[in-house]
Amino acid sequence: MKGVLVIACLRKLTFVLCLCLGGSVASAATVADEVIARAASPGDVLSVEVLLDATGRLGYTVKRRGKEVIAPSRLGFVLTNAPKLDRAFTLAKQSVSDHDETWEQPWGERQFVRNHYRELRVDAVQKARGDRHLLVVFRIYDDGVGFRYEFPDQPQLKSVKISDELTEFVVADQATAWWSVAGERENLEYPVQKTPLHAVALANTPMTVKTDTGVYIAFHEAALVDFASMWLRRVDGQKFRAYLTPGATGPAVERQAPFTTPWRTMQISDSAPGLYMSDLILNLNEPNKLGDVSWVKPYKYVGVWWEMHVEKSTWGTGPKHGATTANVKRYIDFAARHGFRGVLVEGWNKGWDGEWFGNGSDFSFTESHPDFDLPALSAYAAKKGVRLIGHHETGGNAAHYEDQMAGAYKLYASHGVDSVKSGYVTEAGTVQFKGADGTIHYGFSDSQEGTRHFLKAVTEAARYKIAVNTHEPIKDTGLRRAYPNWVSREGARGMEYNAWGNPINDPDHEANLVFTRMLSGPMDYTPGILSLAGQKGRAIHSTQARQLANFVVIYSPIQMAADLPENYEKYPAAFKFIKDVPVDWADTRVINGEPGDYATFARKDRHGQDWYVGAVTDEEARTLELPLSFLDAGKRYQAEIYRDGDQANFRTEKRFDLVVEKKKTVTSTDVLKLKLAPGGGQAIRFTPLK
Amino acid sequence: MKGVLVIACLRKLTFVLCLCLGGSVASAATVADEVIARAASPGDVLSVEVLLDATGRLGYTVKRRGKEVIAPSRLGFVLTNAPKLDRAFTLAKQSVSDHDETWEQPWGERQFVRNHYRELRVDAVQKARGDRHLLVVFRIYDDGVGFRYEFPDQPQLKSVKISDELTEFVVADQATAWWSVAGERENLEYPVQKTPLHAVALANTPMTVKTDTGVYIAFHEAALVDFASMWLRRVDGQKFRAYLTPGATGPAVERQAPFTTPWRTMQISDSAPGLYMSDLILNLNEPNKLGDVSWVKPYKYVGVWWEMHVEKSTWGTGPKHGATTANVKRYIDFAARHGFRGVLVEGWNKGWDGEWFGNGSDFSFTESHPDFDLPALSAYAAKKGVRLIGHHETGGNAAHYEDQMAGAYKLYASHGVDSVKSGYVTEAGTVQFKGADGTIHYGFSDSQEGTRHFLKAVTEAARYKIAVNTHEPIKDTGLRRAYPNWVSREGARGMEYNAWGNPINDPDHEANLVFTRMLSGPMDYTPGILSLAGQKGRAIHSTQARQLANFVVIYSPIQMAADLPENYEKYPAAFKFIKDVPVDWADTRVINGEPGDYATFARKDRHGQDWYVGAVTDEEARTLELPLSFLDAGKRYQAEIYRDGDQANFRTEKRFDLVVEKKKTVTSTDVLKLKLAPGGGQAIRFTPLK
Repeated sequence: MKGVLVIACLRKLTFVLCLCLGGSVASAATVADEVIARAASPGDVLSVEVLLDATGRLGYTVKRRGKEVIAPSRLGFVLTNAPKLDRAFTLAKQSVSDHDETWEQPWGERQFVRNHYRELRVDAVQKARGDRHLLVVFRIYDDGVGFRYEFPDQPQLKSVKISDELTEFVVADQATAWWSVAGERENLEYPVQKTPLHAVALANTPMTVKTDTGVYIAFHEAALVDFASMWLRRVDGQKFRAYLTPGATGPAVERQAPFTTPWRTMQISDSAPGLYMSDLILNLNEPNKLGDVSWVKPYKYVGVWWEMHVEKSTWGTGPKHGATTANVKRYIDFAARHGFRGVLVEGWNKGWDGEWFGNGSDFSFTESHPDFDLPALSAYAAKKGVRLIGHHETGGNAAHYEDQMAGAYKLYASHGVDSVKSGYVTEAGTVQFKGADGTIHYGFSDSQEGTRHFLKAVTEAARYKIAVNTHEPIKDTGLRRAYPNWVSREGARGMEYNAWGNPINDPDHEANLVFTRMLSGPMDYTPGILSLAGQKGRAIHSTQARQLANFVVIYSPIQMAADLPENYEKYPAAFKFIKDVPVDWADTRVINGEPGDYATFARKDRHGQDWYVGAVTDEEARTLELPLSFLDAGKRYQAEIYRDGDQANFRTEKRFDLVVEKKKTVTSTDVLKLKLAPGGGQAIRFTPLK
Repeated sequence: MKGVLVIACLRKLTFVLCLCLGGSVASAATVADEVIARAASPGDVLSVEVLLDATGRLGYTVKRRGKEVIAPSRLGFVLTNAPKLDRAFTLAKQSVSDHDETWEQPWGERQFVRNHYRELRVDAVQKARGDRHLLVVFRIYDDGVGFRYEFPDQPQLKSVKISDELTEFVVADQATAWWSVAGERENLEYPVQKTPLHAVALANTPMTVKTDTGVYIAFHEAALVDFASMWLRRVDGQKFRAYLTPGATGPAVERQAPFTTPWRTMQISDSAPGLYMSDLILNLNEPNKLGDVSWVKPYKYVGVWWEMHVEKSTWGTGPKHGATTANVKRYIDFAARHGFRGVLVEGWNKGWDGEWFGNGSDFSFTESHPDFDLPALSAYAAKKGVRLIGHHETGGNAAHYEDQMAGAYKLYASHGVDSVKSGYVTEAGTVQFKGADGTIHYGFSDSQEGTRHFLKAVTEAARYKIAVNTHEPIKDTGLRRAYPNWVSREGARGMEYNAWGNPINDPDHEANLVFTRMLSGPMDYTPGILSLAGQKGRAIHSTQARQLANFVVIYSPIQMAADLPENYEKYPAAFKFIKDVPVDWADTRVINGEPGDYATFARKDRHGQDWYVGAVTDEEARTLELPLSFLDAGKRYQAEIYRDGDQANFRTEKRFDLVVEKKKTVTSTDVLKLKLAPGGGQAIRFTPLK
């Protein structure tokens, strides 16, 4: 009996190879890896070695401060139309180059981003297989590593059909993982779970790992363009293999060389905040491709949305239709009164009355329900300094949506609507695409076709100067850098689960999100449910202070104040923070945090001198230290503190127990103690005193 | 912080459905499963309930003696060319019928097999989706359950393109699993590992599970014909999902209705021996389709094979070429002298000298190396009452093999060769297939294309009255019942790993195999390495007695005595058992066993009155009780016992410590104590005394 996990070896084939290539190799047992290239990060924190084994298989390792973090892990591809890019490689050439630049974001969590890395390019060749080249390019940062493959222009491998990517990630030390299930076609909306790393099945990315030796690693990808999304499939022990989202009508990926793959990324730090502070994903993306994007505006918004989720109204027509002209006017008035730029309206168009989810063929993206007057409402909003936010629910019918897309954006643009929320609600996430022959087929939204569709929706929108906020999206891989009008997306369990119940989001949900999903980019989390109740008044696992903190903790350049207007009017003291908090930041600091336990964020307004802090905890009460060293030295600040009351607890009616302290004066040398209730949080605004 | 595994819910879509279908459903929280059909096994041991949830999704549960073994588990398919067969189902009709028959095997582990089950047919319809029907048919035995889907002939779903099968297997109680890694294209040759069930990743089948409540379940499939192989992908917790081997050029499965899927099977017992004793897999296969199969002969054989693995000779030409006329004659003489029917010759044909593995395009299946004289050797063998065994190594080039297949079989048949061992050694198991357009592509050997190829090799062979023994095969799913010339296959780590080393097979290997891989069917394990040494004399993890026991423990109707002739001549006492032991059985009893720990088998010769027992243990010494109740009551038997000596131990030179006791007389009321050494075993022949 052997209970241990066994890392399986590929020995049989190695053996055969040895026999064939002369029989002189001493034993299949000794497949020594040769280091053919190596490079370290600028600050010598991380280093990468590229390996070649005795069979000519490429591999790599990553070390942090000299200690192996990623054990020897394989590289390569299986093709359907040509022999594998797997073995028989030799090194053709390698080069190392240094890069250091700082670039400015049009909007974001920090205005300026430093991109400082050493690049290691390895050009490998399969001489015995028609002299085919495959390049692997590593970018090594002090806080992470990205690598991608380059398929060069070579006549012997022009058309590339990829069934499997062989890239591995073998975590060297025993580790714990925070991960969510992938491959279930459920639009990335599975809860984050914490398990031993060896109990992960097929994981979505980012997957966050903490080793028993205290190293944090977040696995993800950057710049996912025209390629199948990568999931992480555990093979055995702590060995993971890239799993390319299957294609519906052919192999996972079909491309013509030359092309590059997305970057396979590992943010690596000795703390969870360190993972978040890494700009690896953005840095590995292309610079802005859209030119002047001053028309992309960060904003806060309200809208006709939560009322459907709590069953006050419906998307479809009928006596409870939410998107009526009268009701939307009410929201416009509310937005104008309280300084919100946007009003989202869902259920405004035709197509909601049938079985639309997973179907979507009845949707019109240009025709309103008769009780919704788009021109009149747009004009009314404009008069009040407010904009309608468009809504395109596709029911997962990408093909049908693409057919109407140009007209749909054009209509909105003509009414001053400069941002659209799109949706892809389907049965189990299967999206309808149109094949080259015009026939419709069903495929994964994460497939190569999916990457094409979602990016098309964004680039088409850009032609009309419209920003896109995708729900039930493909995962974020930092494409907002190249396409700054892709302002936000869903891609995790949002607030609506708190409306529906069974189960609602756990108290640790946000503390999980920030160190997993949020590493990928902004999320339209729709925070701010001050009523703390879903359907039938069912309590949410949060205090009121935590609802405020979420505006700082969960980043998005567009933030919804998601509760009903009447609820905000019930809680004016709390609502003030929601009205005050910015959505665009000059700088961001993650003060502390552990996945699923707690997190504290400090962010500086990009258009002012104020700092904002948000802290959240899980079901445990905690007292967190907040050193104010991020504040300007020598300046005095007034702290406006929204904290859990002493009796606050998400489990009781005391979850509404919010204390607002307005008069505290602090400096950068102070250290505040943040007392967070079970399921609680704290939000603070720091304003410099004149 | 939440460390527990979470079974994710598909609530969002349920919610949306509720909204759309009237909004009157009280809450998404209550998706109650309705039982629409149920039936129990003939002896009322197992029962199945078929479920429909509030969204019209089909599911099932399995109970054993009233207690849930398989918790509610989903059924259905995702198609690429039509909406999913997933929800919106209602029950069209159901029926229950009883079946009890006994059929005779031409060869096997028992002569007569009882097929006693209750069948539950459920015809479900998606009225709102074009009135599409899907049938689920359960066959419920006292020792297992199989179910398959039927796609009826219906114009609205004629062409069926399946990307995913949604069938789930949710194990109700906490459990341990014995499993091997799937999806690595390594020809099923990963070691069996034992882990908690929730630490399984993607598993090959059969996967064997033992719950903490003492129930054993083996998950597998039966009658895999023209369909993608099913692997088991763990989604979450103890929930597994059928994972269809991907297609290389399209969806996993493409079929025209009407058709049926393979059976999804669960052997269920309160003991590991109970799993093995189940004939579920064979019973779910079709009866013999080949008519008279008297030409399919069980036999023992020797051959030019182990000498290559221990580097005494080579497959390719050169000074060490193994398949020379002179060397083969030596084996023929040896076979004739000791009563072996067959002599396998590998490396006889052209194509071994290049890079053949994963390529195979140089192989000729009709042209011999000049130093191998097929006609002369066949004639020489025939004179001595021996037959050559053919060998077709394809290097995984199924397309190239199919091109030559008819000629290859014809050649062998013309020389009296009535069985062929085939091989598919590739780099990482990717096989070359020919597409409909004649172009070659690379796909999984487990794919739908693979099922077609491997079966074609068998049915073509049958035309020439040739039996097939497939190495690097598709997994066994009981097709030997319909095609009795498919006599054996590899499909697990065989003896050759003990030649190569690094690592050699663990001492628990056979005790693992019998309760995992061997549940699928015969294995050409090539036992009997009495020299107990691989390359460079490296010791095998076994005693000599265990090498004998394996002939009884590991079933195959063709068994190789795999060691070199000179080694057998060194150990005549032990060799006698190998010469005596039959390969075809009237009956089989698994006396005891636990996966990975130990197992004892008793089998009765189909052509005599003798019983044979084999027992194996892992690295632990054990004393097993062997009640002889399987012997005929009232008869006296002479027991010829091949046991570990008192000092025997696989770790030392004492692994050769074999004691043969010839004179013991026993009856059916006796209970023997089998003392097994660490890594040891015991083999016994019971002969009735006149």
